[in-house]
Amino acid sequence: MTSGVDLPGQSHQRASALLRRWLAETHTPVVEGPLRLTVGALRLGTEVGYSSPTGAHGFGTIHVLDDSGEPVAVADPALLAAACSADARARALPDAPINSADAGSPVDWLMRALPRREFDPLALSEELVAVARSVSDADEARRWLAAHVEGRLLPAVLGWEGDVAAATVELLTRGPLAVIGLLGRRGVVHEGDLLAELRKWLGGVAEAHPGSASLVEHWLASSTLTDLAVLNGSDLRYRSNTGEVQIQPVRFEAPNPLWSGAAEAPGVPIPVLGGGWSLRPVEVVGSDGGPDVALVHRWMNAEHVAVNWNQAWPVAQWHEELAGQLGGQHSVPCIVGLDGRDVAYLELYRVQRDKLARCYSHDPHDLGVHIAIGEPDAIGRGVGSALLRAVADGLLDADRDCRRVVAEPNVHNGASVGAFGKAGFSRSGEIGLPGKNSALMIFERG
Amino acid sequence: MTSGVDLPGQSHQRASALLRRWLAETHTPVVEGPLRLTVGALRLGTEVGYSSPTGAHGFGTIHVLDDSGEPVAVADPALLAAACSADARARALPDAPINSADAGSPVDWLMRALPRREFDPLALSEELVAVARSVSDADEARRWLAAHVEGRLLPAVLGWEGDVAAATVELLTRGPLAVIGLLGRRGVVHEGDLLAELRKWLGGVAEAHPGSASLVEHWLASSTLTDLAVLNGSDLRYRSNTGEVQIQPVRFEAPNPLWSGAAEAPGVPIPVLGGGWSLRPVEVVGSDGGPDVALVHRWMNAEHVAVNWNQAWPVAQWHEELAGQLGGQHSVPCIVGLDGRDVAYLELYRVQRDKLARCYSHDPHDLGVHIAIGEPDAIGRGVGSALLRAVADGLLDADRDCRRVVAEPNVHNGASVGAFGKAGFSRSGEIGLPGKNSALMIFERG
Repeated sequence: MTSGVDLPGQSHQRASALLRRWLAETHTPVVEGPLRLTVGALRLGTEVGYSSPTGAHGFGTIHVLDDSGEPVAVADPALLAAACSADARARALPDAPINSADAGSPVDWLMRALPRREFDPLALSEELVAVARSVSDADEARRWLAAHVEGRLLPAVLGWEGDVAAATVELLTRGPLAVIGLLGRRGVVHEGDLLAELRKWLGGVAEAHPGSASLVEHWLASSTLTDLAVLNGSDLRYRSNTGEVQIQPVRFEAPNPLWSGAAEAPGVPIPVLGGGWSLRPVEVVGSDGGPDVALVHRWMNAEHVAVNWNQAWPVAQWHEELAGQLGGQHSVPCIVGLDGRDVAYLELYRVQRDKLARCYSHDPHDLGVHIAIGEPDAIGRGVGSALLRAVADGLLDADRDCRRVVAEPNVHNGASVGAFGKAGFSRSGEIGLPGKNSALMIFERG
Repeated sequence: MTSGVDLPGQSHQRASALLRRWLAETHTPVVEGPLRLTVGALRLGTEVGYSSPTGAHGFGTIHVLDDSGEPVAVADPALLAAACSADARARALPDAPINSADAGSPVDWLMRALPRREFDPLALSEELVAVARSVSDADEARRWLAAHVEGRLLPAVLGWEGDVAAATVELLTRGPLAVIGLLGRRGVVHEGDLLAELRKWLGGVAEAHPGSASLVEHWLASSTLTDLAVLNGSDLRYRSNTGEVQIQPVRFEAPNPLWSGAAEAPGVPIPVLGGGWSLRPVEVVGSDGGPDVALVHRWMNAEHVAVNWNQAWPVAQWHEELAGQLGGQHSVPCIVGLDGRDVAYLELYRVQRDKLARCYSHDPHDLGVHIAIGEPDAIGRGVGSALLRAVADGLLDADRDCRRVVAEPNVHNGASVGAFGKAGFSRSGEIGLPGKNSALMIFERG
């Protein structure tokens, strides 16, 4: 019953594979250094030893933490899988496929995978794993990549017809990008170098073969790329209809490591609203912040707002928050009046400077909006949707280069999702964020 | 993020606690040395370093094995909990409480327990844990036990009214017996010595206080004692009606470490059956076993039998099996005829020599029966239940000291459970066995 194999090390590999997926699928930013996060009922802590542009991060021991943040256990893979599963189920609506009685869970996958020595619920092809394991230095990696682009990618791109997302997954994110990540984590290459080479080669392909341009351009110019999710997503299932363990991954958008970055986004414009609405940036004055800070604090502590915003902070914290927003470029906090009475709080933001930038292929001019109707008697009767419509129209008027106004209400907040829909926003999918799954609501310039 | 605490050691402690429970709740015999078992989809292997009369066994590293029996991973606690949960759910009927959508699972418990540093889903009271941890030698253990019997057990026993099972759990199995187990595993005492002392003291209590006699006699004379199950059992739940994580244990019978053993059980009698039935022990003759062996082999390989018996072996293996049974004291293999035609295979056994002896408070004269109607055209139309009734009556006639004939059909085998019921056996509960949960069916002498 003894073994020369490093079983605890393999357990860490398995747990790391799950943590990587969870961070990617919830669009959680990862930087080198200590990382804390909460997944379902579990508080976890680890040290990010290697932060990867493709998401192939390397972690120190992953611990379960107690309430005071002290490690109490090594987070074993099955526990992590169970916590991710519980969290993903809670993020989705009760009637989502992932919550159906026979959907199975990643723990089912793990019980089958372990005896088969499988490590990752989203494994690469054996061929690519063999490459990632055998390549031993940067030159060899470059040669492999050149041969792959020439011999595999180019023919596939030239023969490509149809679905951009499917081609992206098959040819890019689950192909060379994943291999580059593995080589980077192994310390064989600097991922950035290899990504720059790939970018150059793809640029050459697009130039030499105009027929490939739309797909390759998408890969180079889009801020996100389609990848597969195996832990979070309403439509995930881990069992087939016959009950067999079989992960059915779903698509999601992850930051594009080939993207060279967008043009600088301008500041947030202040829209002029029609139809009896007024809008002004919050004013912060005096030592206590003044009346606007007091108003926002009161609204944020009202139960109907607090339950969705989770920002029922003391007034001093709101003072600091609002002053911070006004002093930065990310977002502008505003107070909205209806027929002369202050009724709602808005935050207007440039998507490019927001966590949402990691979640869909945004344009640098895209604007986003958060809304809280502060006065309870102004809720319902179409007030919210009328305001959202006025804000969307006002923002598109105020920035002629802006083509989209977006929002990301929690999928559980049916009233909010409904109000955005009634205001003319369309639901373009579900996105994982740290702490919740949101409906991505988009108002397109007509 | 580092810690002086032995986190991998704690993980082993947690996994061991779960394995101990699973072995007890499935009545799996445990001896020192290598142990292999299958729990749900997982094959597990470990070394039993300490085999305990109270079930407080000590294990080496618990491994997940691949198909060839090689260790591929350390069985982490969450994986073990998930495997036990999957197995327990599969053992129970689909409409059992444990299979309800909101029943939760031991993994839910573990996710809550880990950050709280809880190790065992069936933890002892803090006071008893403190005793088990602080007692440092056998003399001190004896003194503690004497004081416990005098100061706690005796008053409780004298004040006892009513439910034997509840009193047994509260006062004995989840009390001093569990403490003795912990001390034994710690190497502080020989459990056998302390159990002998407890037996002596309890004998004294029964003598001095006739009012306590029925309860204390039960503790001393019963082959099994009631304990609590937290991993296997149709009625288990891990969530309250409000969704809160909360294990609701169920009762089961475990071997009584205070029991001094039953009187020697006599051999198995051969009953004479009425009503057109005949019964004869299997005859094994010649180099290939002869016609009876061939007949049993044919029946066991018929699909309707194989699916329940799982003994569709080659004829040579049946030859060996039947010769073995005929040469031993445990059971007698028989062939039953109806109106002159061989139709069924029976095994008659003394419970005391069977695995069933560990599962309920048996009497040395209890007899058990396994049945397979071999001829498909003899199934249905009440043939099985008529035969079972004839066998039960015949066995009670053949051994005047026998008060009960029992059987243990798989709870999923509704036809068999129904036939026993129709024959006059009553269902006295569900018992966990290695590989299945069975309905314990009892035919009492009228």
